[in-house]
Amino acid sequence: MGGLHEFIRWDRPMLTDSGGFQFFSLAKLAKFTDDGVAFQSHIDGSRHFFSPEKTVEIQTVLGSDIMMSLDWCMGYPATFDQAETALEKTTAWAKKGYDFWQTQGAPNHLFGIVQGGMYKDLRTRSAEELMQIDFSGFAIGGLSVGEPTDLMYEMADHTLPLLPGNRPRYIMGVGTPENLVELTEMGCDMFDCVMPSRNARNGKLFTARGDINIPNARFRFDHRPIDENCTCYTCRNYTRAYLHHLYKSRELLAYRLNTIHNLYYYLDLVSTMRQAIEADRFEVFKRRFYDTRSKGV
Amino acid sequence: MGGLHEFIRWDRPMLTDSGGFQFFSLAKLAKFTDDGVAFQSHIDGSRHFFSPEKTVEIQTVLGSDIMMSLDWCMGYPATFDQAETALEKTTAWAKKGYDFWQTQGAPNHLFGIVQGGMYKDLRTRSAEELMQIDFSGFAIGGLSVGEPTDLMYEMADHTLPLLPGNRPRYIMGVGTPENLVELTEMGCDMFDCVMPSRNARNGKLFTARGDINIPNARFRFDHRPIDENCTCYTCRNYTRAYLHHLYKSRELLAYRLNTIHNLYYYLDLVSTMRQAIEADRFEVFKRRFYDTRSKGV
Repeated sequence: MGGLHEFIRWDRPMLTDSGGFQFFSLAKLAKFTDDGVAFQSHIDGSRHFFSPEKTVEIQTVLGSDIMMSLDWCMGYPATFDQAETALEKTTAWAKKGYDFWQTQGAPNHLFGIVQGGMYKDLRTRSAEELMQIDFSGFAIGGLSVGEPTDLMYEMADHTLPLLPGNRPRYIMGVGTPENLVELTEMGCDMFDCVMPSRNARNGKLFTARGDINIPNARFRFDHRPIDENCTCYTCRNYTRAYLHHLYKSRELLAYRLNTIHNLYYYLDLVSTMRQAIEADRFEVFKRRFYDTRSKGV
Repeated sequence: MGGLHEFIRWDRPMLTDSGGFQFFSLAKLAKFTDDGVAFQSHIDGSRHFFSPEKTVEIQTVLGSDIMMSLDWCMGYPATFDQAETALEKTTAWAKKGYDFWQTQGAPNHLFGIVQGGMYKDLRTRSAEELMQIDFSGFAIGGLSVGEPTDLMYEMADHTLPLLPGNRPRYIMGVGTPENLVELTEMGCDMFDCVMPSRNARNGKLFTARGDINIPNARFRFDHRPIDENCTCYTCRNYTRAYLHHLYKSRELLAYRLNTIHNLYYYLDLVSTMRQAIEADRFEVFKRRFYDTRSKGV
């Protein structure tokens, strides 16, 4: 089909995951071995075997710009032994995937994924092992899998400083606006999350003064935009009342306009943080961010 | 909310119906009287009374550009007596709505709606009675309500020539591309129909060479656009394979891209017909239209 960019007509960078998280989240269909993961499709029952090499090959063929190594993802809670096994497998697979990528001429980027569960010494070991490999960047996996937020912060704060400052540091599957602010302050450079788009489809919209549920009856006759200071397409054109109406009527336009707003909010947030960092004013930014978010809409 | 145009941010003409068709299609909730329709909401059970004057007033307040008179719509089949009663009520209501509109200064347009079921003499009577009133245009209602296509054509072909050539003639709720071609040839100027958008959401796409069902497995690896001669946004950018994938994955983008294509197809069709009429080449157009539509995709 000409690769992902051609197929979906998106000419900007795309990041692809290896499937490691899906093997974990659909674990009853996956069998883990030293060489990779035997996986049965939940769609048609077909059987597949994914090795670290094959997941790199697939991502390369798809035309991915930033690929993830195959990793062994653990749930929460996990025992030390489980987390250690996952870590060891992840390191071994990372090396194999990297070597394969090198034989292909390394035409794109490949990240290693730090595992180690909620055990700091295992996180340290995982980071140190992966840093032996010349990855384009480093991801921290296995966070935001059900653990308390404070524990997630604790593990991120422990792990981020271990990773090289001249390579992107990426926390997978996170998070709320507050999560992004805290983790950026700790040194994280990249995030991915369904939250802005999924919340949008559920009518939950982010604003500088906190989140709102657009289906709520109080917005029925509200002439204002979602966020009076937002310059997104949705806020420049439509009222809360209209978005409320679209959502209650299950008009497809509701999901689109809400998604435009939430993605804009996230992009604006990280852009603002970048500027604050460059101006060495992150603390001022952070204080204002929390002050405003707590004001209420 | 500032009117429909402001609320939904659409600055082009909008046509609104009076609700007559909804009273008919939700008939068990409606009670018809000489003065109008008593209606119970299927949403919250609330009771409303819609007079011909009130439906014009509501449409005016909404900011409608082209309003419809309140009409009494019949299903198919209907007896002569039923059709005659509906016709008489429709004429009486049309007059009342028109008079009210005049007292408002007639700031927009108001159409009368011809009824009369499948009885030619009643259609004639309805048209003649309505033509006594100086409406902006004339609609033909009560077609495409379950009758065979040939009968729909027969009634349209009977009624259209009765209506003044210097006012728009509008057949409500029709139809397929073939319907539009046939009825345009008979003298119809306007149509409305859910078909392009509803079919799009169901994966049924119109092309010059016939219709296709995009969920069909044969499109799974089809690199071509929906219609190789179509210049819509969807056809300029995406393959059948991608649209098939989006549809099967229930991605919201499927509904949007499909709708863009189908609406473009309909707009292109009526634009082509207009040009053919102006060039006095409608018969040539029509022959080619059918030849191409029968070729298959």
